[in-house]
Amino acid sequence: MKKERYEMRFCGSGGQGVITAAVIFAEAAGVYGDYYVCQTQSYGPQSRGGTSMAEVVISPHEIDYPKVVNMDCLLAMNQTALDSFFSDFSPKGLLVVDSTFVGQTPTSSSISLPFTEVARELGKEIVANIVALGAVGQLCGKLPIADLEKAVLARVPEKFRDLNREALFAGVDLVKDVNVEGLNHTPSLDDIYGLSD
Amino acid sequence: MKKERYEMRFCGSGGQGVITAAVIFAEAAGVYGDYYVCQTQSYGPQSRGGTSMAEVVISPHEIDYPKVVNMDCLLAMNQTALDSFFSDFSPKGLLVVDSTFVGQTPTSSSISLPFTEVARELGKEIVANIVALGAVGQLCGKLPIADLEKAVLARVPEKFRDLNREALFAGVDLVKDVNVEGLNHTPSLDDIYGLSD
Repeated sequence: MKKERYEMRFCGSGGQGVITAAVIFAEAAGVYGDYYVCQTQSYGPQSRGGTSMAEVVISPHEIDYPKVVNMDCLLAMNQTALDSFFSDFSPKGLLVVDSTFVGQTPTSSSISLPFTEVARELGKEIVANIVALGAVGQLCGKLPIADLEKAVLARVPEKFRDLNREALFAGVDLVKDVNVEGLNHTPSLDDIYGLSD
Repeated sequence: MKKERYEMRFCGSGGQGVITAAVIFAEAAGVYGDYYVCQTQSYGPQSRGGTSMAEVVISPHEIDYPKVVNMDCLLAMNQTALDSFFSDFSPKGLLVVDSTFVGQTPTSSSISLPFTEVARELGKEIVANIVALGAVGQLCGKLPIADLEKAVLARVPEKFRDLNREALFAGVDLVKDVNVEGLNHTPSLDDIYGLSD
């Protein structure tokens, strides 16, 4: 099934770095990769509850409407954010949650990985967003890990580069245990028109 | 003249922190302030030249189209970015440029301030974006400096908080020498419907 665009939403609490993760993902695909990308965050009364949300729309063509219409991938870093931002999720979408803070998922086909626990083991809980990036980058299709790595390193202060690189690859490793067979019917970045056509 | 929305664009080179500045401005208005805000960045072939651009749309009402249509405020951190992203500028808009890297402006009513020079004096060129934020926040209307300060401090690592606070207020100080009389006819955040009505 070929698609015109691949639509992602990252959500979590204010301190979990989902906006930074979305900016980095967008730069990996749009600056270091060959896609057109729109990255947005919207604020309103809902954003004053401490929940944070960011969107990334990726296409091989110019993007007309920059926000998510039919969500192909949702990354949720905690339960409240998942409950708030699950609407617009495509029935066949890819749902990835941080098992550290998400107990219940609204669909049985979600992928639960301990991003924050892994980040704690690396010594800094705040790199949980980068661990998640590594995992989502692998799960959502052919976004080269080298492009994600360049985008991460360009966005973090020099003295934290090694930690963030470690976090990214820890996220990649997490996915090795995931049964990707079950994801076969899920739309992915590989399914959008243009680049490989 | 009352407006429905206030539309801003920040541009510069990849390393000048315009996306971070836009995220911080958006959070000051949308998380710490009472506005609806959409913040976007778009990437495509043009973004691979090393130029960076981010947009902020602010309204007291829900925002339908999240990108800039009629630009009320343009912050340009270097000449190439200014030349690339000046289109859509409103004839009465507020143009603020970093005089360190912008020699020529396309309109005589621009405001030229040495953001990067001031940042160098503070010891770190990379806080030029925060100096610029302080200035733009003052020039574009009633965005309380306390809200901008909260948004800056929430986004920077703890050990750089003092430096960033200093940078923000250095930007506020820069504006004290600006002839704001000449800006009287410029649309500002104070001119959008709703909050004070």
